[in-house]
Amino acid sequence: MDSKVSARAAALAGHLSMRNSSAESKDTSILGLGNPMASMAVERTKASFPIRELTYFLDGGKEMTAVKERMMTELERDPVFQNVDFYDLTKEQLRERTMSKIARLIHYITSEREEISHLRFSLVGLIDMGLLTRTGVHYALFFGSLRGSASPKQFSYWISQGAAEMKGMVGCFCMTELAHGSNVAGLETTATFDERTDEFIIHTPHIGATKWWIGGAAHTATHTVCFARLIVKGKDYGVKSFVVPLRDPKTYDLKPGVSIGDIGKKMGRDGIDNGWVQFSYVRIPRQFMLMKHSKVDRHGNVTQPPLEQLAYGALVVGRVSMVADSAQMSKRFVTIALRYAAVRRQFTSKKGEVETKILDYALHQRRLLPLLAQTFAMQFSSDEMSAMHRALMRKIDSTDPSDLKAMAVVIEELKEVFTTSAGLKAFTTWACAETIDQTRQACGGHGYSAYSGFGQAYNDWVVQCTWEGDNNILALSAGRGLVQRYLDVQRGSKAPPQTEYLNKLARLKFAQAGSRQIDSAAVLSEAWEAVAAAVVSKAGESFIALRKKGLSADEAFEETSQQRFLAARIHTKCFLVLKFFDRISSSGPEIKPVLTDLSYLYAMWSIENDAGLFLQAEFFTSEQIDDIRELCNLYCRKVREQAVPITDAFNLSDFFINSAIGRYDGNVYENYFTQVKRQNPSKPQAPYFEKVIKPFVHRVAEVEVDAEELDEDEA
Amino acid sequence: MDSKVSARAAALAGHLSMRNSSAESKDTSILGLGNPMASMAVERTKASFPIRELTYFLDGGKEMTAVKERMMTELERDPVFQNVDFYDLTKEQLRERTMSKIARLIHYITSEREEISHLRFSLVGLIDMGLLTRTGVHYALFFGSLRGSASPKQFSYWISQGAAEMKGMVGCFCMTELAHGSNVAGLETTATFDERTDEFIIHTPHIGATKWWIGGAAHTATHTVCFARLIVKGKDYGVKSFVVPLRDPKTYDLKPGVSIGDIGKKMGRDGIDNGWVQFSYVRIPRQFMLMKHSKVDRHGNVTQPPLEQLAYGALVVGRVSMVADSAQMSKRFVTIALRYAAVRRQFTSKKGEVETKILDYALHQRRLLPLLAQTFAMQFSSDEMSAMHRALMRKIDSTDPSDLKAMAVVIEELKEVFTTSAGLKAFTTWACAETIDQTRQACGGHGYSAYSGFGQAYNDWVVQCTWEGDNNILALSAGRGLVQRYLDVQRGSKAPPQTEYLNKLARLKFAQAGSRQIDSAAVLSEAWEAVAAAVVSKAGESFIALRKKGLSADEAFEETSQQRFLAARIHTKCFLVLKFFDRISSSGPEIKPVLTDLSYLYAMWSIENDAGLFLQAEFFTSEQIDDIRELCNLYCRKVREQAVPITDAFNLSDFFINSAIGRYDGNVYENYFTQVKRQNPSKPQAPYFEKVIKPFVHRVAEVEVDAEELDEDEA
Repeated sequence: MDSKVSARAAALAGHLSMRNSSAESKDTSILGLGNPMASMAVERTKASFPIRELTYFLDGGKEMTAVKERMMTELERDPVFQNVDFYDLTKEQLRERTMSKIARLIHYITSEREEISHLRFSLVGLIDMGLLTRTGVHYALFFGSLRGSASPKQFSYWISQGAAEMKGMVGCFCMTELAHGSNVAGLETTATFDERTDEFIIHTPHIGATKWWIGGAAHTATHTVCFARLIVKGKDYGVKSFVVPLRDPKTYDLKPGVSIGDIGKKMGRDGIDNGWVQFSYVRIPRQFMLMKHSKVDRHGNVTQPPLEQLAYGALVVGRVSMVADSAQMSKRFVTIALRYAAVRRQFTSKKGEVETKILDYALHQRRLLPLLAQTFAMQFSSDEMSAMHRALMRKIDSTDPSDLKAMAVVIEELKEVFTTSAGLKAFTTWACAETIDQTRQACGGHGYSAYSGFGQAYNDWVVQCTWEGDNNILALSAGRGLVQRYLDVQRGSKAPPQTEYLNKLARLKFAQAGSRQIDSAAVLSEAWEAVAAAVVSKAGESFIALRKKGLSADEAFEETSQQRFLAARIHTKCFLVLKFFDRISSSGPEIKPVLTDLSYLYAMWSIENDAGLFLQAEFFTSEQIDDIRELCNLYCRKVREQAVPITDAFNLSDFFINSAIGRYDGNVYENYFTQVKRQNPSKPQAPYFEKVIKPFVHRVAEVEVDAEELDEDEA
Repeated sequence: MDSKVSARAAALAGHLSMRNSSAESKDTSILGLGNPMASMAVERTKASFPIRELTYFLDGGKEMTAVKERMMTELERDPVFQNVDFYDLTKEQLRERTMSKIARLIHYITSEREEISHLRFSLVGLIDMGLLTRTGVHYALFFGSLRGSASPKQFSYWISQGAAEMKGMVGCFCMTELAHGSNVAGLETTATFDERTDEFIIHTPHIGATKWWIGGAAHTATHTVCFARLIVKGKDYGVKSFVVPLRDPKTYDLKPGVSIGDIGKKMGRDGIDNGWVQFSYVRIPRQFMLMKHSKVDRHGNVTQPPLEQLAYGALVVGRVSMVADSAQMSKRFVTIALRYAAVRRQFTSKKGEVETKILDYALHQRRLLPLLAQTFAMQFSSDEMSAMHRALMRKIDSTDPSDLKAMAVVIEELKEVFTTSAGLKAFTTWACAETIDQTRQACGGHGYSAYSGFGQAYNDWVVQCTWEGDNNILALSAGRGLVQRYLDVQRGSKAPPQTEYLNKLARLKFAQAGSRQIDSAAVLSEAWEAVAAAVVSKAGESFIALRKKGLSADEAFEETSQQRFLAARIHTKCFLVLKFFDRISSSGPEIKPVLTDLSYLYAMWSIENDAGLFLQAEFFTSEQIDDIRELCNLYCRKVREQAVPITDAFNLSDFFINSAIGRYDGNVYENYFTQVKRQNPSKPQAPYFEKVIKPFVHRVAEVEVDAEELDEDEA
């Protein structure tokens, strides 16, 4: 720290300590505590780049930052969204609070463009994931299904019933059953056509087909889009979707034949009222089947579309937004942990000196700074993924379905988006879960307090690794896509940009870092491409060998599960690394250096974690792997200097951080103590003092039974 | 499945389905659901070993199994311990319930031998970690401190006050402060001797010195053992311990000068009433300082003992028991996930056939079976660690403190126990957290239900990675011990058995698997020793090089943090592998084969995860690493056949498993649905229907304001 900086910091510390009015904080400049606010202020003087520029770069431009800031203001000033008591709410309180917030959110949703609402949702989700889900159940799942699967006439009808505004009706989405989650095609609820009355009979044949995990079903929904097997004249046409009224929208009494219950306590997201639903011979008009794709006419004639795959395009939206959520949520928690690390002091090397900031310990840097770098990697890949997805959707909308050649091209692209989004969803939601966990641990005991925000967020978050495609299954599916792509390339096709490395297999096979400088985009990109190529090739070759042995394709895929999983993992890491380097190329000169340091740290830390594969591919020598470990230490030290300014660039206000130990001012102990006291006002005795504690502590010994007295007199 | 087995299974299935009386379960033999109970029964017919023998082996003999079973019966029949509603309790309910359980537990604790109580605590901890902590605060921390640090006279006095029975007094333990956790020597609460009145003045000088996280302080404790800096005649003698009365045991009113508050909601363990405590010039008699080691007499003369390290011996107990807890808790969760996997079916390869058990998928085996193997590794290392600790304690008790030569030997052994227990505590508590998380994910969506048990357990568990020595700090400390041991060996000392590999560095440096069979105890042990030797040597050599460059020992240790961490991690893994093989040698012939498969799986899976290090050490070739990946698949398939019998051998009753999806009978869907319905009885409307839902859904559009009407007439 140069003398100018320390003078500024000292002045600032003096200024700030004036503002501490409570008697308790008068004496905070003692050695162990240091002066947290001054410690934080010093960090900010270290910024080597214009923080605001990095914010604009991350947000996608100054205008987007302005929009986000307007929304943040709207939300944090709204009394319904106040969240100071958020971590103390019981399940029941949380559910009521969540519904109140939805009633408030609707004002915005119905008065702004959809992209703007998306941005708003992503901010809302940052601090209240249960709220996001509960709103999403209606808008993304129920209303999204109507939009994707209803005929235009049906869609207009449901809009006229209030579906777009949650007015007079609230929707939910009955897909998952007790015994079927991943295997959607195996769902067992039936929708049997009754030609006589022109109705479908929706029925739950046994306990395993009970609709389960249905968000909104327990308390809120009046209607559902139900996935059920279409049965017409005894023939099973597979799973289609049907609108089924669940409750009378006036009284909320259940419709005849509908049984609903609350599935109760969950690991997290208690703000959403998940329920179970059983249908007992419930009749709905034939026209309540969503008929954009498959159709059933008055006489029970069934028509099915030639390209039903396109309907799955909609499924990708969820994955794409989860990649974005992963980056967003990681920003929140690396910010908390880095701010805490910048003011928390523990141990001193020289007696009598102020203790050392934990951020200055090498291991602590190692724990947090790669996660900071990873957050950028996730954000940039997410941006890329969203762009791919938007482009695909535009193409789907603009392609004439009868132009089969054009459609074939679209479907190829859809497959690629499927594979990429599957891998990204899986590995970024896991990475985010790991980030919340690791950043919590990095805050020591205080990370375990509910008021630091980690516990609730972890519990709310981790379901992202399971729903909308279990991460393991998605990874296997991405791996399958990669093996197929490898086979295509072997047959002479050209791989698309996402797997460009498959077009240069011959060269990559013998690629080596050689004497080149390791910390460079060229070497690190090539390293990742070489290893991705090696891993995908190995999985592909294993598959080919098993097929030659006579295994069916399904069997050969099953046999190569572990390799497919690895292929998906490494392919996705490679994608994250390459997109990071790509994106930096468009950054301004003032922020490029800090982004470059972060990108090298991310790429090398990731290599270190999979060192075995880089050695097996012979891209790096054993000595170079040791060098990479040292380089990781070095880049951690570099990035450490900019850590607080970088997290400031994430531009999340204290309201969105919602952590007693992660606020902007760094005044951790005061903020934390104040929060604890406000949420837990002193009481003279425990509520169960008279009932339990007192009788226990004041108990007297039982009168000892002298059993011998009971002996018969033997005399 | 041979025909005899399938006939037995079919018969059993028929028998069992007779017992299903509910109408819903009549039709469960349909394709998607299979018949869960029959599926489970089939698994049990596969047992290739006598399950009971494995139970005895794990428990340490038939007699121990009998004792455990008696305790399990006592606990599960006791109405106070009923836990069917456990996952639905609010923080307030949980705290009251926990206190009621303690009032009940005391009956056992005060009437049985301490080792027996330990076993009981470990069972209690399995299902209610908050209860274990809250009891432990009094017995392990408060009472344990009295035993370890009070003079015999003082100890008798506190016993006479009721300390042994929690009668008339309840203790807590004021160590951690808001600003100091890991650095105990830096605590700032003061205990200043007032010679005039023969008292100590206990004082909290500023907010950072507020005692924080104090279990039992918020509601229960009447007394505390407080860590404070001993100040006599202006001189600071460092941190000592003092008994400080907090509340009047009759009324529970706070003593003058004592401020206490509730620290409120935590990520988990809400059954324990953690609080904060501030002392404002609180006076206690001089005799309340615990004076077994350091002493202050009437005139303020301070005597300090020559070997205060011995006092730290007591600290190791906590670590040792956490290693045992890690194994215990892992048993519970691998059992749940494996039972679920044995009956859950999803997808089918052939249309019209019953779907495949998820346990039959290669990737699912990969996710769970190494964790099963790891559970055994943890248990055996824990047994070894406990034995080492007991031996040490016996030696401490039997060595004459004035025999300095004998004491030096004891202290060397203490150091070794410190290093080993530090590494084991860190890496087994992490492994257990990972196990709970991974097993939850392996149960898909249902793993996220509170009633499956994972969420609560994860939240309760993870604090184990932070308290009683943060895992990262412990790992660094273990790494420091290893570097020091390496330096000793370089200077000609012989390494103790725990680091035996350091005695054969020259040979291990060039050791290779060569053409030997990989899946053998000899090769796998040598592999781990070779890599541990390589990693510890590298850390040691880096340290030496830095010292030669002129760095102080502290600086050189800090510079080698990452290497020390790695050394501790690999050393601990090596310990786990070696102790696994050691222990098997004492197993009977009937269970040896299954234990051997598990040990190979554990050792090879661990190699796979650190393949880079084995390649760098050149113990295995790149091709052999590929072979190991294949062998892991193979051993997963082998162990899969015995998976359910192995978990049965853990011998945990349904009460202790406490998971709707993990019960012995395999009847997951019925059990789960029953639990959900019992805990969430149907209600016609949500509690906030009138207040929130109705006004929202039935809202009418606001009357549109026609602002133009307000225009001044321009005419």
